[in-house]
Amino acid sequence: MLASIEAGGTKFVCAVGDHQFNIIDRTSFPTTCPEETMAKIIGFFDACEDIQAMGIGSFGPIGINHQAPNYGYITSTPKTKWRNYNFLGEMKKHYQCPIGWTTDVNAACLGEYHLGSATDKNSCLYLTVGTGVGGGAIFNGRFLEGFGHAEMGHILLRNHSKDPFQGSCPYHGNCLEGLASGPAIEKRCGVKAEELDKNHPIWEMIGYYLAQALVNYTLILRPEKIVLGGGVMSQSKVLEFVKKEFSLMLADYVEIPAVDEYIVLPSLGNNAGITGGLILAHQLI
Amino acid sequence: MLASIEAGGTKFVCAVGDHQFNIIDRTSFPTTCPEETMAKIIGFFDACEDIQAMGIGSFGPIGINHQAPNYGYITSTPKTKWRNYNFLGEMKKHYQCPIGWTTDVNAACLGEYHLGSATDKNSCLYLTVGTGVGGGAIFNGRFLEGFGHAEMGHILLRNHSKDPFQGSCPYHGNCLEGLASGPAIEKRCGVKAEELDKNHPIWEMIGYYLAQALVNYTLILRPEKIVLGGGVMSQSKVLEFVKKEFSLMLADYVEIPAVDEYIVLPSLGNNAGITGGLILAHQLI
Repeated sequence: MLASIEAGGTKFVCAVGDHQFNIIDRTSFPTTCPEETMAKIIGFFDACEDIQAMGIGSFGPIGINHQAPNYGYITSTPKTKWRNYNFLGEMKKHYQCPIGWTTDVNAACLGEYHLGSATDKNSCLYLTVGTGVGGGAIFNGRFLEGFGHAEMGHILLRNHSKDPFQGSCPYHGNCLEGLASGPAIEKRCGVKAEELDKNHPIWEMIGYYLAQALVNYTLILRPEKIVLGGGVMSQSKVLEFVKKEFSLMLADYVEIPAVDEYIVLPSLGNNAGITGGLILAHQLI
Repeated sequence: MLASIEAGGTKFVCAVGDHQFNIIDRTSFPTTCPEETMAKIIGFFDACEDIQAMGIGSFGPIGINHQAPNYGYITSTPKTKWRNYNFLGEMKKHYQCPIGWTTDVNAACLGEYHLGSATDKNSCLYLTVGTGVGGGAIFNGRFLEGFGHAEMGHILLRNHSKDPFQGSCPYHGNCLEGLASGPAIEKRCGVKAEELDKNHPIWEMIGYYLAQALVNYTLILRPEKIVLGGGVMSQSKVLEFVKKEFSLMLADYVEIPAVDEYIVLPSLGNNAGITGGLILAHQLI
């Protein structure tokens, strides 16, 4: 049996699955403090038999360098209770099986790369647009990582000509997350993003910002597929705005696949991350 | 003996070297039409004995996908005589040895990665800032490539608050190349970039744009080293402006090496590209 944890900033999902990545059992609960959350994780997995390996995709930033003392930690998160929390170390106290460790978006990317919309590709970028904006990429089967993991939700963008908003990111103001995340939308419109009508003009603006980011990702990375997940993408018109603005901004400068094939929603839907965790676990055995 | 070609948009450099990558003989000549240029290349290498492999780093865009019909071609370049020119195919007519093929910036990156400022790193990004702006990256020994090669000189940026310039890029206006290349500087100042005084205020602005691009590369790629080459970087104050603005804009959001170690000039100087070509050749034998 394989185990998977999708450790999100809002909720945790735990699941076990078979070697064909079918989810056999799952649970989810809100992200509270580490002690309470960890007790629920352990409660779930302790009731499961014969776990051979685990994969964890965690909200971050996280320590991913095996040689660094903070490997396996959630590091400088704004969630103060989780700051510098040795998540992987705590799990290893309870489980002796191999445990894979990566970001939540890398795990979702892995799911889409192996079993979702990028199964026939050698490279894939996954971006989630919700409470935060984060991305992960896989090239030739490996996560794109260097000195640390990607933080591509924080790239600097130019404002839309009709948008004077200075952004909601405490670090960068009007970076991508500061302009296009759920809280950034709420701050402009005064109501929660999910309560806004699908015809609200903000969605076209969000499409513009995401398109601008996707143009930059495309020119830097040249992935074969871009998958857009997260709550903001469930707004029915956003994807079309992204694709329209993307084509205008890229101006045919580099060859890409047909845009409808290139920029897509996750074909695993909300299971991209948890499935990616099972794949990560499987890679260890 | 190893052979190397640095095929630049302004000039070509051809060299032969030994297996320790010492350059034994070299020549260079202006980039004119393909027939004339090719005759000079062949004239040089035909006089060299026992070439076991070649490495070519070419200006682009170029076709890099082995399966595509345009593999080995210079493709949509503004240099009309070179457009859709089968460079690699022409070389293969004359030389039966293995020939490596990549972009000029990837070749320079390879040189710095193996023998220059990134020898102790697993990842490196090389950016040239001159007539054009282009970049290449290596992660774990492999060029970062997907549907095609990077075109990271064309990422979209926000204008400096004191710079109303709408950019010189025919595709994107005020993208990085449209704002910070030699021609973009000349268009603003009315004189060639190399004739401007080192205290001219434009250099601080160029530092701002390069820093902004480097922040985005950093957040997306997390390379362990960034090497800045090209004519604009030979302006003595630009590097300092880049580093200063970079630190301000990144706002300590992600961990990076000390900035003086992280953003550097090529330690191989003008030999980065031609040395990279020798390494590329060596990898084939």
